[in-house]
Amino acid sequence: MLRVPYTDLEAALHRAVLNLGLVDQPSPPASVPAATLCARLFAETTRDGVYTHGLARFPRFAAMVRNGSIDPLASPSRTSMLSDFRAIERWDGHRGPGNLNAWSAMSRAMDLARLHGIGAVALANTNHWMRGGTYGWQAATQGLFGICWTNTLANTPAWGSTQPTVGNNPIIIAVPRSFPGVGSTTLPPVVLDMAMTQFSMGSLSAYAQRGAELPVPGGYDLDGNLTRDPAAIEASQRTLPIGYWKGFGLSLVLDMMASMLSEGLSTHQFPLDPLKETCLSQFFLAIDPTTFADPTHLSQIAESILTNLHDAPPEDPAKPVRYPGEETIRLREENLHLGVPVDPTLWQKLNDLTI
Amino acid sequence: MLRVPYTDLEAALHRAVLNLGLVDQPSPPASVPAATLCARLFAETTRDGVYTHGLARFPRFAAMVRNGSIDPLASPSRTSMLSDFRAIERWDGHRGPGNLNAWSAMSRAMDLARLHGIGAVALANTNHWMRGGTYGWQAATQGLFGICWTNTLANTPAWGSTQPTVGNNPIIIAVPRSFPGVGSTTLPPVVLDMAMTQFSMGSLSAYAQRGAELPVPGGYDLDGNLTRDPAAIEASQRTLPIGYWKGFGLSLVLDMMASMLSEGLSTHQFPLDPLKETCLSQFFLAIDPTTFADPTHLSQIAESILTNLHDAPPEDPAKPVRYPGEETIRLREENLHLGVPVDPTLWQKLNDLTI
Repeated sequence: MLRVPYTDLEAALHRAVLNLGLVDQPSPPASVPAATLCARLFAETTRDGVYTHGLARFPRFAAMVRNGSIDPLASPSRTSMLSDFRAIERWDGHRGPGNLNAWSAMSRAMDLARLHGIGAVALANTNHWMRGGTYGWQAATQGLFGICWTNTLANTPAWGSTQPTVGNNPIIIAVPRSFPGVGSTTLPPVVLDMAMTQFSMGSLSAYAQRGAELPVPGGYDLDGNLTRDPAAIEASQRTLPIGYWKGFGLSLVLDMMASMLSEGLSTHQFPLDPLKETCLSQFFLAIDPTTFADPTHLSQIAESILTNLHDAPPEDPAKPVRYPGEETIRLREENLHLGVPVDPTLWQKLNDLTI
Repeated sequence: MLRVPYTDLEAALHRAVLNLGLVDQPSPPASVPAATLCARLFAETTRDGVYTHGLARFPRFAAMVRNGSIDPLASPSRTSMLSDFRAIERWDGHRGPGNLNAWSAMSRAMDLARLHGIGAVALANTNHWMRGGTYGWQAATQGLFGICWTNTLANTPAWGSTQPTVGNNPIIIAVPRSFPGVGSTTLPPVVLDMAMTQFSMGSLSAYAQRGAELPVPGGYDLDGNLTRDPAAIEASQRTLPIGYWKGFGLSLVLDMMASMLSEGLSTHQFPLDPLKETCLSQFFLAIDPTTFADPTHLSQIAESILTNLHDAPPEDPAKPVRYPGEETIRLREENLHLGVPVDPTLWQKLNDLTI
């Protein structure tokens, strides 16, 4: 792995995104120019150590712009009637870039939450949002709670079947620890970002590529036995939902909510080719606690929970207990300091605009 | 097991609840008399086959009324300021009966959702809600999506520690399939009701009592090995979160959200004695899709997902793939027809008012 300065990565991605046909016009309702924001979100994902969904994912993004799955110039529009009293809206992503559509949807949910206390956006016809955690950080660093999830193509067997029937539908739950104008320090949020399978598809493929065994069983082999061999799971396509029947059930209801509330497509309607996985349905929820609760008290509650968590005796003294997102901050700082790790071949292609 | 007519079970529970000091005055904001509703929710839980949280749980409920943990006469009150524009509120349960408080909170969230499209209630100082699925059925049978969760005492190790640090914080997600005034048939909702541990405490204890092995590993034995022996897990108190680190993370953020938004207590503040597990924090969310979407289209999307699910080839031809809540309907009909299964000793005590 090569380490490159973060700003170089963002700049190279910006050139590549412009080359794909995105433009730097503000994508409503977000006020950031589209190509700049799209590149920044890819770069930040790699910076934060979520290597499977940053630069490493960019070739697939580029291929999907080129094959027409992603419309680089589309921006989302509201499909539910405008209403002053309503705290939830439906939007259509028009197959625009998934990270831009998701950013816009969470922005809108946050605006609704600032007005109503809680706000939500159901988004149809969008594309893969890359790192889902992005939209949790987006809300929680502004002092709002953020929840969002997406459906995906069928990559997980229904419980009791061996055939991929449900998606692995990642869900993100982000909890703010600091609130604007309260206190003198800004504490990083707690951000849970998890797929309904024990390992995301990207993570499974990363383990397989480096020939490593999974730390816990991640699916079944072709003979129907639970296995820690990522290649055997890729061969059988029988991934394991978290908690067996529970993760299956959770995945099903998340698909139902996202597609019903957005009146969009459901998992079973997507082609099984990842390069044609478009018109996804997603759901974004934000809560602004400063509209109905005491933010100083909320911070105290959060710190008391995290202090108690950190006090839990670790099984391995070298590995203290951590909250979701804690490792992200450490990796972010390390990567900003030492340079962001990139695959040398991919980095060359990115700079040559041949990605 | 003895089978008794459902109406007899509900009537006997009603007498027992009155004997504990509950009264039949309407508990705001629900309009049903409190003692009648409390008894009905216990009886319906057993009727629906969730045997661990119905009549079997009543002795603990009675003990907690007697030891002062539950105030049989308390009803919830709003703690956030009343505001016309706000779709989320904070309520205080004043240590009233947990199922009544939860029913009231979901009722209020549903009222807010009918007004704003989406509505939520964060509830502090409440008690164990018994079957969490109850409040999902409550929303979804009225055509609303319902999500709710509760925190619990620490019964699950933090990931990387062997000591119980987080709760198993059940979450419920309920999806309606029919909407008032739309279509001629009423279809039962999809209701997911799951604890963050692979097996709920009640379920673990039920397996242990009948000397049965768990179908999949449910925790660790005292030597730190994954095991399917429920008694070994009760001995070590090292339950397994669903998806290992994922269920731990989900449990943590659910506790943070429930206690922060309600400004109530967190898992680490509860005594480890289940008979003194009071002042819980809970969160209730409802969405009324008829305010912003086409309910006929929503029903079509739901049926298309469930048809596709039922079409998945089962691994065992005798066990077709089912959605969460599907088995509930079958058990409910069976128990209404044959009588509700009750433990004979418990049934005798209930009728003698010596429970």
